[in-house]
Amino acid sequence: MAIIKPGLPKGTRDFLPEQMFRRQFVMDTVKDIFERYGYQPLETPSIEKLEVLSGKYGDEGETLIFKVLKRGTGLESLIRDKKDFVVREYGELVDEALRYDLTVPLSRVVAMYQNELVFPFKRYQIQPVWRADRPQRGRYREFYQCDADTVGTGSMLADAETIAIIYDVLSTLGFKQFKIRINNRKILNGILQHSGLPPEKGNSVFIAIDKLDKVGMDGVKKELRDRSVTDEQINKIFKVLEITGQPSQILTELTGSFSKFAALNEGAEELSQIVSYLSDLGIPEANYKIDLYLARGLGYYTGPIYESVVEEPNIGSLSGGGRYDKLIGMFLGRDIPATGVAFGIERIIDVMTQLDMFPETTTNTEVLVTLFDAETMNASLRLTQQLRRAGIKAEHYFELTKIKKQFAYANRKKIPFVAIIGPDEMAASQVTIKNMETGEQKLLPLEAGIEFLQKVQSK
Amino acid sequence: MAIIKPGLPKGTRDFLPEQMFRRQFVMDTVKDIFERYGYQPLETPSIEKLEVLSGKYGDEGETLIFKVLKRGTGLESLIRDKKDFVVREYGELVDEALRYDLTVPLSRVVAMYQNELVFPFKRYQIQPVWRADRPQRGRYREFYQCDADTVGTGSMLADAETIAIIYDVLSTLGFKQFKIRINNRKILNGILQHSGLPPEKGNSVFIAIDKLDKVGMDGVKKELRDRSVTDEQINKIFKVLEITGQPSQILTELTGSFSKFAALNEGAEELSQIVSYLSDLGIPEANYKIDLYLARGLGYYTGPIYESVVEEPNIGSLSGGGRYDKLIGMFLGRDIPATGVAFGIERIIDVMTQLDMFPETTTNTEVLVTLFDAETMNASLRLTQQLRRAGIKAEHYFELTKIKKQFAYANRKKIPFVAIIGPDEMAASQVTIKNMETGEQKLLPLEAGIEFLQKVQSK
Repeated sequence: MAIIKPGLPKGTRDFLPEQMFRRQFVMDTVKDIFERYGYQPLETPSIEKLEVLSGKYGDEGETLIFKVLKRGTGLESLIRDKKDFVVREYGELVDEALRYDLTVPLSRVVAMYQNELVFPFKRYQIQPVWRADRPQRGRYREFYQCDADTVGTGSMLADAETIAIIYDVLSTLGFKQFKIRINNRKILNGILQHSGLPPEKGNSVFIAIDKLDKVGMDGVKKELRDRSVTDEQINKIFKVLEITGQPSQILTELTGSFSKFAALNEGAEELSQIVSYLSDLGIPEANYKIDLYLARGLGYYTGPIYESVVEEPNIGSLSGGGRYDKLIGMFLGRDIPATGVAFGIERIIDVMTQLDMFPETTTNTEVLVTLFDAETMNASLRLTQQLRRAGIKAEHYFELTKIKKQFAYANRKKIPFVAIIGPDEMAASQVTIKNMETGEQKLLPLEAGIEFLQKVQSK
Repeated sequence: MAIIKPGLPKGTRDFLPEQMFRRQFVMDTVKDIFERYGYQPLETPSIEKLEVLSGKYGDEGETLIFKVLKRGTGLESLIRDKKDFVVREYGELVDEALRYDLTVPLSRVVAMYQNELVFPFKRYQIQPVWRADRPQRGRYREFYQCDADTVGTGSMLADAETIAIIYDVLSTLGFKQFKIRINNRKILNGILQHSGLPPEKGNSVFIAIDKLDKVGMDGVKKELRDRSVTDEQINKIFKVLEITGQPSQILTELTGSFSKFAALNEGAEELSQIVSYLSDLGIPEANYKIDLYLARGLGYYTGPIYESVVEEPNIGSLSGGGRYDKLIGMFLGRDIPATGVAFGIERIIDVMTQLDMFPETTTNTEVLVTLFDAETMNASLRLTQQLRRAGIKAEHYFELTKIKKQFAYANRKKIPFVAIIGPDEMAASQVTIKNMETGEQKLLPLEAGIEFLQKVQSK
């Protein structure tokens, strides 16, 4: 038979056990914090109707949606029977696609089950999303997102809570030098007004500003010029964005100089409330700042927006989010306010790996029970089962072979203890337990051996 | 703006929090048992190259593979610009697909990383798979599988261990009246030989026999006749399959009557070893049986096969698996023996729901901290954060509104406790804690309140 070359689709990855231990550590930590904040789990299908996803992510996003070939239309058999056919439009080929994020599926869920859900609906969701992006270092076509969102309240307390969650997740994972950048789309809208640009220009201007970190100030200005923003307008915009300082300073200067723009004032008032709540929630001032340059690319944000960056080393954003009070309305016909955050779990894992921030894994097998010979084998198998019932991660070897070979397996798999029942041990209902790191051996009654392993595993 | 009708693709489901608690309970239980047996986690991408999946699942399986539209070929822009184009073959449209099971991806992984993995490689994998099946009750287009496999040993101890895992999973979940059916493809091959049918007829005969539970004996016989098996051959086959009794009786009768068929003898010897190991591993005889009718539909099985069924109520199989010693060879060019089980987690959840087998959920929020008024609000927010840091699932309300409304939210969300800090409590550094079920109220110092909630949550 011809051998099939085993390979992976572009931009996708396998996670072998060692990587999985790290992924599970991060996701378990995030899940634990979400639950402490009272968020409840939700899962949605990987496949959504194309019309549910379309028009939410901007032109660029649109091309990145992975489409699934339509089922049950006879199309497949046409292809298989090698009959030519002409494709005239999308609908003939595809009407479903892989989800692009977790926010649009949440909005669909809220619209569909509005009578079953309790509002404010606080949900978390940890699932993969797909984007047909050009793969590069740190950018994948399939990756997990970890989202927490609050639906059904316009209270700035919900935004402050979201920022508190970002702080708790990053500090619990061990990050020190990070900053949560906070801004408000309403302030950006006010600045747009001030510059004399029409509201419909907003998204393309915000997308250009959002690239500041990547392309620098000159790059952003060039992109704005390419989008027919005049130099005068650019100057007006940047004159405002340049305002820096403590949150209260920035907000005072904004509302003082641009009080005639209602949107800007409203946005500044919202940020002022958030800053006050963050203090009540005990979030250190060193870990957040108001940053007027923050724009966020996605089209659906309507109010406060936030992003977290590790400053040392400089590795870009680890989470992004904000308020989207109009998105659910696209499915429901009436608006329901909502806000939330998505953690870029893949980048977090990459960075934690680089910075050697992971604890030693504890998910591995704790003890290998050897098979000494045919006569003692059933005693070894019975011990293995007793260990498992006592909650100890235990395996027995699969073949009657030299003990040396069995020890080598334990070493390669970094199993810390080996248990041996030979004829003497079996006769005396005992077990020899060897510490594979120190080489130390103990001969213990079976019960005492199980207790000993229970104790060392729970450490 | 036009409203987008929110809907789900056929055969897919949303899991709201209450369902998620159940799903997490089952998957956490399965994961815990897999880990006790020393299995390590693996995850693979949802999307695989089409050639990796093709030719593994039989003709029927082939049509059920969900294909993903090819990316970056200019095809999408042709479609978007409404330019007709002619499709001549699959390759133009698709070269990737959603995974159909977790066994073929495992085989690909073993072939790709053979030098990094430690053998025997014991891995578990809990991820969704996709099949473009006709949706019906209990059959979905996207569903989770929970697999545990051992790769790199032909030892029957690995098969016995797999059966022990099935027993542990089902009994830990609370199933009582279940039976693990065990057979061996080698025995079925021997029976095929005995009936005079050629080996290449094997798969279609096995698939027909496998439908016994669904279509009954006459249905199977009809299907075999449709596949040009003669009445004489059918009679010969069923004469053997009819053998029943204790494992040892069945095996003795088989090897006594059909000793000239090497495959059959080998298969019987393997089952005899498995039965002996099951006894060592302490698996009750009441929970397994040798059942010669068991065939399993998939083409890649080569040795022992197993399936678990709940007998009361009769709801079909909850797990399926077996040995596939030739599958990895399709990617590697040399065979590596492997065996394992896949749990039909969706059916398990459906059945446990029907039979009311789930414990009361404990994943919900433990306490709602009310917002009494503007003056005490920061004390309430601070308490909420202290509760969370103490590991308690806590939320505060989001608006300053009537306490009655806040209590109603706690009731609808089934939050068992409510904490109140009014002006008196704040002045005295106290908190009132109300049990929402009994109506009982306690006034406690803040520290004591936190300790009390810690105690009730850990119950």
